[in-house]
Parts: sequence; C-alpha cells; structure tokens
Amino acid sequence: MARWGNAVQDREEQQELKRKAIIREAAQIFSRRGWHGATLDDVAVRLGVTKAALYRYVRNKNDLLFACHEEAMEIADRALSEGERNGGTGLEKIRIGMRAYLSEMIGELGVPALILEENSLQGDEAEQIYGLRDAFETRLRNLISMGIDDDSIVPMDPKLGAFMLLGAVHWVTKWYRPGGDWTADEVSDALIELATRGLAAEPAPGLAAAIHHYSTDG
Amino acid sequence: MARWGNAVQDREEQQELKRKAIIREAAQIFSRRGWHGATLDDVAVRLGVTKAALYRYVRNKNDLLFACHEEAMEIADRALSEGERNGGTGLEKIRIGMRAYLSEMIGELGVPALILEENSLQGDEAEQIYGLRDAFETRLRNLISMGIDDDSIVPMDPKLGAFMLLGAVHWVTKWYRPGGDWTADEVSDALIELATRGLAAEPAPGLAAAIHHYSTDG
Repeated sequence: MARWGNAVQDREEQQELKRKAIIREAAQIFSRRGWHGATLDDVAVRLGVTKAALYRYVRNKNDLLFACHEEAMEIADRALSEGERNGGTGLEKIRIGMRAYLSEMIGELGVPALILEENSLQGDEAEQIYGLRDAFETRLRNLISMGIDDDSIVPMDPKLGAFMLLGAVHWVTKWYRPGGDWTADEVSDALIELATRGLAAEPAPGLAAAIHHYSTDG
Repeated sequence: MARWGNAVQDREEQQELKRKAIIREAAQIFSRRGWHGATLDDVAVRLGVTKAALYRYVRNKNDLLFACHEEAMEIADRALSEGERNGGTGLEKIRIGMRAYLSEMIGELGVPALILEENSLQGDEAEQIYGLRDAFETRLRNLISMGIDDDSIVPMDPKLGAFMLLGAVHWVTKWYRPGGDWTADEVSDALIELATRGLAAEPAPGLAAAIHHYSTDG
C-alpha cells in the first residue's frame, strides 16, 4: 500500500496534505466502525505509516474527531462562498453552495457519518465546532431570506427551510456508498435539485438531474 | 417525582405502559447525554423507581436501545398505514403518513436522537432493526411510485425521493427541543409541507403551515 495513501504530491504542501490524508482516512474508518469501534492504529494501518508517524499530526482520537468536524466546516464555508459568488438569486446561491458542499463532503472527504455524532466531542473543542456550525446555519438562513426578498424563494420560515435542507443533505452520509451505482456528483445534482425544488417560488415542472431519469428502481 | 412518570393509568395495560414509560425516558436521556454518557441508573432515577424494578422490564442498556428503535419503527408503521388509509393520491398518503410519523416521534416518544446512532446496535438485534427500517423505506418508495403513476408526484427516482424525505424528517431529532417556541404538531405540519412540496407534480404557490407565516426570524 502506498505511504500516506498517495496524497503527497508536492513538497511544500506535504504537512497539510498528510494531515488531510489522515482526516479523510479517519473519517471513513470511524464512519464504518463507529467512533468507539475504531482506533488510531486502524488509521495508521490504512495509511501505511507507523503510529509514531501519525502522532506527529494528531495527538489522539479526539483530536482526529475534531479535525474531521473542522474539515467539514471548512468545506461548508468554501461551498457557500462559491454559491454566493456564482449564483444570481438567493435560490441559485443556495443550489450552487449546497451542491458543492454535498459533493465535496462525500467525494473528497469520504462519507463522514461522524458529522451526525457530535456527542463524542468534548469541552472547548465541542464549543468551537458548535460555533462554526451555528455560523454556517445562520449564513444559510440569510440566503433563504435573500431569496424570499428577491422572489426566487416562496415565503417561509428561513430557520425551518435551513433545517430541512441540512437534514436532506447530512442524511446522505447515512446511505451513500462510494463505488456504488451513483457517483458523488450524480447524487449531489439529484438530491439538491429535489430538496430545493420545494423552496422555489416557481418550481420547475420536472426534475432534470440524471438520476431521476435513468432509474429502474420502483 | 411521580413513580413511573405518571404514565400508569389503567391496571390492565400496566405492564405495557411501564415499558413505554421506560423507553420514552431512556430515549430522552440517551439523546441528551449520548449512548455512552448515560446509564440505566439515570433512567431509574428519572422514573422514580428502583433499578431492580427497572430490570423487570429491560435486561440492560442494549435491550433499551433496541426497544427505542423498535418503538420508533412501530410508530412509523402505524403512521404509514394511516396515510395509506386516509390519503387519496400517493402524495397525500405520504403527507399524512410522514406527518403522523414525525409528530408522534417527537411528541410521544420524546426526541429520539438515538435513531441516528444505530452503530451501537449489535448482532441479531441490529439485523432485526435494519430489517424493519428497510421495510419502512420500501413502503415509502412504493408510495412515491404510486404518486408518480397517479400524477400527483413529479417523475423522480423513488429511492432518492425517500432518502430526501427521511433525511429532512430524522434531522428534526437533532434540533427540535420540546417546550421551545414550536409544538410537535406545528413543526410536523410545516416541515412535511415544505419537504413534500418538492415532490408535488403541481406544487402549491405558497406554504400554508402556521410556522411559515408567524415567523419573525430572518
């Protein structure tokens, strides 16, 4: 097995890339076995490095859990910025932003089911993650309000709209399996189109995403 | 504190009511403190009974977790039956069924965040719960297919439609707090209306649920 999962491509970014490789691998292992069922040893084995090498980047399992959450929040932040930059209306900003968030979450980071288990976070680190999450939710609510104001989104409670979207999106980590029938991009297109159609002031008459057309299921 | 949380009203149903009282209390305690942070002692204290009395109904924590999941699946089953009976189109059946499921989940059972943490289930009991959950998902997919056939639901992949709805609904256990601004019924009305609007072949021009109108947020 390649050391560091082949993530190291560039000398200058080595440190950061190694840290990201650890986070990605850890997120996947913890997602599969649960927080209490996996160890740092498992992560080291998967990355093909010694545990001592691993300890240069993370001190313990809690450190790693915190890093997974932090990484997810960084992805969320970048995604919403992309939406705000490239979308015209509030609804478009949300579609672009949430699509990018979902696609990167399940594509790049693996499938971080741990996002659903924040109970394992403790003390200051828990507070820090809750703070980042609150900021993300507030930003999403503000985009919904913007969409109501510019008539792209049907009048609604922005808080409830944000919760609905976040539920639909985060639940994907419960059922999506990489390497199955659907790619991360296909799922992101189809799910965000469906979940945001209910928000639209003038919903499109049909769904355009590929998954909704080539399905043979049901 | 009242013994058994005042749930005992009738001699004949005593056994079952006590069991339900235990499950409700346990679901709430585990939801607040996490699966690993709470004990059977905590449940006994909350119910005002001895641990020995509790052991007549549940053998251990795993037993209780299983009972919580089983209860949620019974609620889901009853709710979908209600929808199938009382709804005309596929879309109406889903709206009535999922509204009843959500409302009873967060109203009667408490807020069972444990539903999101099935990693703690083990062996045969895990298989049993997965089986019940699969049956529930299949039933929901079939209702979506029925709605596509009767033209109440826009053509889509029924699997993805079911995942979207289940995500929006189960996520409520993450953010809803009983005794806050919104009652279980208000939240259920508003969330199900919003989440199913995206499924409708002809979405209503606006949202009717009270929460979407009296909000001052955003």
